[in-house]
Amino acid sequence: MSAYQKLLLECYLIRDLQNIYALLDWDQQTYMPLNAANDRAAQLTTLAGLVHEKTVSCEFGRLLEQSEKEMKNADPDSDEKALLRVLRRSFDKEQKVPQKLIEQLAETASNAHQAWVKAKENRHFPTFAPLLEKLLDLRREYAACFAPYDNIYDPLLDHFEEGCTSAALDVLFQQMQQELVPLIRQITDAQQADDSFLHQYYDPEKQLRFSEDILHRIGYDFTRGRQDQSVHPFTTGFGINDVRITTKIIPDQPTSVLLSSIHECGHALYEQGIAPHLNRTPLAEGVSLGLHESQSRLWENQVGRSLPFWEYALPLFRNCFPEQLRGVSARQLYAAVNKVQPSLIRTEADEVTYNLHIILRYEMEKELLTGKIAVRDAAEAWNEKSRKLLGITPDHDSDGILQDIHWSMGEFGYFPTYALGNIYAAMIWEKAEETIPGLNDSIRTGDFQPLLTFLRERIHCHGAKYTPLQTLKLATGKDHIEPACLIRQFKQKYFALIQE
Amino acid sequence: MSAYQKLLLECYLIRDLQNIYALLDWDQQTYMPLNAANDRAAQLTTLAGLVHEKTVSCEFGRLLEQSEKEMKNADPDSDEKALLRVLRRSFDKEQKVPQKLIEQLAETASNAHQAWVKAKENRHFPTFAPLLEKLLDLRREYAACFAPYDNIYDPLLDHFEEGCTSAALDVLFQQMQQELVPLIRQITDAQQADDSFLHQYYDPEKQLRFSEDILHRIGYDFTRGRQDQSVHPFTTGFGINDVRITTKIIPDQPTSVLLSSIHECGHALYEQGIAPHLNRTPLAEGVSLGLHESQSRLWENQVGRSLPFWEYALPLFRNCFPEQLRGVSARQLYAAVNKVQPSLIRTEADEVTYNLHIILRYEMEKELLTGKIAVRDAAEAWNEKSRKLLGITPDHDSDGILQDIHWSMGEFGYFPTYALGNIYAAMIWEKAEETIPGLNDSIRTGDFQPLLTFLRERIHCHGAKYTPLQTLKLATGKDHIEPACLIRQFKQKYFALIQE
Repeated sequence: MSAYQKLLLECYLIRDLQNIYALLDWDQQTYMPLNAANDRAAQLTTLAGLVHEKTVSCEFGRLLEQSEKEMKNADPDSDEKALLRVLRRSFDKEQKVPQKLIEQLAETASNAHQAWVKAKENRHFPTFAPLLEKLLDLRREYAACFAPYDNIYDPLLDHFEEGCTSAALDVLFQQMQQELVPLIRQITDAQQADDSFLHQYYDPEKQLRFSEDILHRIGYDFTRGRQDQSVHPFTTGFGINDVRITTKIIPDQPTSVLLSSIHECGHALYEQGIAPHLNRTPLAEGVSLGLHESQSRLWENQVGRSLPFWEYALPLFRNCFPEQLRGVSARQLYAAVNKVQPSLIRTEADEVTYNLHIILRYEMEKELLTGKIAVRDAAEAWNEKSRKLLGITPDHDSDGILQDIHWSMGEFGYFPTYALGNIYAAMIWEKAEETIPGLNDSIRTGDFQPLLTFLRERIHCHGAKYTPLQTLKLATGKDHIEPACLIRQFKQKYFALIQE
Repeated sequence: MSAYQKLLLECYLIRDLQNIYALLDWDQQTYMPLNAANDRAAQLTTLAGLVHEKTVSCEFGRLLEQSEKEMKNADPDSDEKALLRVLRRSFDKEQKVPQKLIEQLAETASNAHQAWVKAKENRHFPTFAPLLEKLLDLRREYAACFAPYDNIYDPLLDHFEEGCTSAALDVLFQQMQQELVPLIRQITDAQQADDSFLHQYYDPEKQLRFSEDILHRIGYDFTRGRQDQSVHPFTTGFGINDVRITTKIIPDQPTSVLLSSIHECGHALYEQGIAPHLNRTPLAEGVSLGLHESQSRLWENQVGRSLPFWEYALPLFRNCFPEQLRGVSARQLYAAVNKVQPSLIRTEADEVTYNLHIILRYEMEKELLTGKIAVRDAAEAWNEKSRKLLGITPDHDSDGILQDIHWSMGEFGYFPTYALGNIYAAMIWEKAEETIPGLNDSIRTGDFQPLLTFLRERIHCHGAKYTPLQTLKLATGKDHIEPACLIRQFKQKYFALIQE
């Protein structure tokens, strides 16, 4: 057996363990009984330990090195080369960070999470502040393992979006902010959307069936996935043949629920669409968080918040809820699911203001990490940025700086990928409209196949074989990120909506 | 850290992996999407490989030996001594069997299972016969690893019921057969049970809620377990704080469904009742299949098929199904769920004839293994034994020798534990009646706590700390197996029933 073949077997084993870990986590969030939590934590720790042991082992490093030699002259575009590149990248990263630091991060994050829960309950940032301080220190130490860099933010960002830098984000986000702030004012001043018909009781069981029906029509493969319920909706996979999503039914928010299901479905379609021969390897996943998010956002926003979609879906929706939707037109529904309104909570934001929430967090993270903002002043800084970007400020910290879980987990550099996802989605959609004749007409008739095929061929099938920017280029022909494309789509859509 | 402490950590790790394996299997049988089967098989193989690697490792053997020395003078009744005894037993067993043979057994069983499915579909034993032949050969080879023994059946039996021998079973089963064959004739000649009111449509959703209600009242802890649906009902656990059961709803068999749920609940109560400090060790499980089955049978038969139980449960049952149960009395229901009737299929048998199904299989297994029956004559031998024991013969092999899955999995020596479970249950019930004042009255009022406490204290809490017979003695004061006790209970119950 060649070193590469041995390496591949080791990859399969590690991947299986990671997939098993994901299943334990899925179960924990869906069906696990209340008092199993401690045992489950022990099981997850055991698995994580085994994965770590395998991935940093000398044996693994030796196999990797031998494989690189064996494959020296292989086709640069081959799967083998791609796998070796990805393995080398993560192996070197793991080698650079001392085990002690990883453990400190895990332990501090665990304490920080508890402090955050308490602080959020009490609407009191100072309870959480010392832990945030400690997490920032540890993350600075972590980033320092990857010196040299231009900005301490870069290694953290690179973890989620390979190749992305804060210098690049500064430019992108400034451009977005300049365009979005006046645009949002313009929209909110003029829009007239009556969404009162959505705020009634919609039977949860029927909502669930309706969303399953729509997912099925979009192309989600229920023989390789399923939808369950959980407190927070998410997508997870245990290999490309078992990619599951969850939803949370809210009786008086039927379209939010549906669009959340479609969002998760977009993530799942990505993973279900990865080429089968990549399964059980590190290439069998989305290439970056940003690209992953582009798939969920594209289905949620470019499709699920479009007029053609509701022209198709309204009759199906009305079949389930004839009383509630009597006399409602597709155009009314379209307007209702596209209401723009600056609000305090990111997860409830409309597609336009959402990006400002991300810019706020990006600025906060960068300035906290570089020390430009002191932790003791962070809540105030948040409120000030909220006023500047959204025009509103929270009444208390739980609606402000304490609202998201991410920092309490020690994750910095994650948020920007949400906005990148929105931009990528716009660029991919633009290319799809250019490439697929009658794309909107096909959606209007419920034929999602042309779009799905486009995404499958240009993005999904590659998994993590290429870098994010290479993948973007394969999809759109462009290897630079264009926020202007998203702005253009916003203007086109909302100018039409407010002129009605 | 002492060797024993290190050994304990290794036990925790192995136990976690085994519990994770069980979770993957649970998911496979309940929620896993259809096309995930191959990936799941790979994940299970990966986990099994890791567990095997850990349990037979030289390091593990060395730690075990050192621990035995460290603990030489420990209290013989301590948990430490018990754990070392159990570990030594399984470690030595694993060492005795060549890895090659294990792999051959697994591979042959996999092929045999497919052949069995096909043979059963076609009602044609000869399709399965060559694989059965091969499995018997391998199992003989397996048993030979444990020579010397009185009968080649003994090492196989010992795997499921430590200390039990075919010599002992021969005596027990002969005694049972002599009593049961005439008793069954006597009952069936005289009984008059009208169960037609059970053969109507009972809403599946309501059946599910009703069974959950009953499980709750019996004492099943839903914060450390749950009930789902699967093709075949089963119990599984991932540690003592997550013990799950499944049921299969059949619209026109509401009491079979309920009693099946109660049966699985009996298994689950055993594991939920194991002392918390044994969790994550090999002592945190039922001591043997027979004792495990005793707990399920006791709740199913001694409780669930008793008059006091139905005097309590009928009003609750009628609340769910007022139409179907109009005018039905507790006594009628009691008679209906205790109809005795020789039938071909073991899993559908009543509690009395069930034992003859087991004796049939036990005789077949022993005679096949010792060569007294040739595989080519096995179907005929089955039919002849069926005639002799049950008075009926199947029309085709699928209702005869092909009906059970066990042999296709290469398992011989498993079936007797079902009958042992029935006997143990009767002995334990006898002791409970002796010990708990007003036991039947408490059941009649829906108070199951005295019985559960009795079982918890005498059986459950010990887990696998003692041998099966030691456990039986702790529960009943007797260290020998008494089929007469079961026969006595049958006579008392059914003579009263047929004399009404």
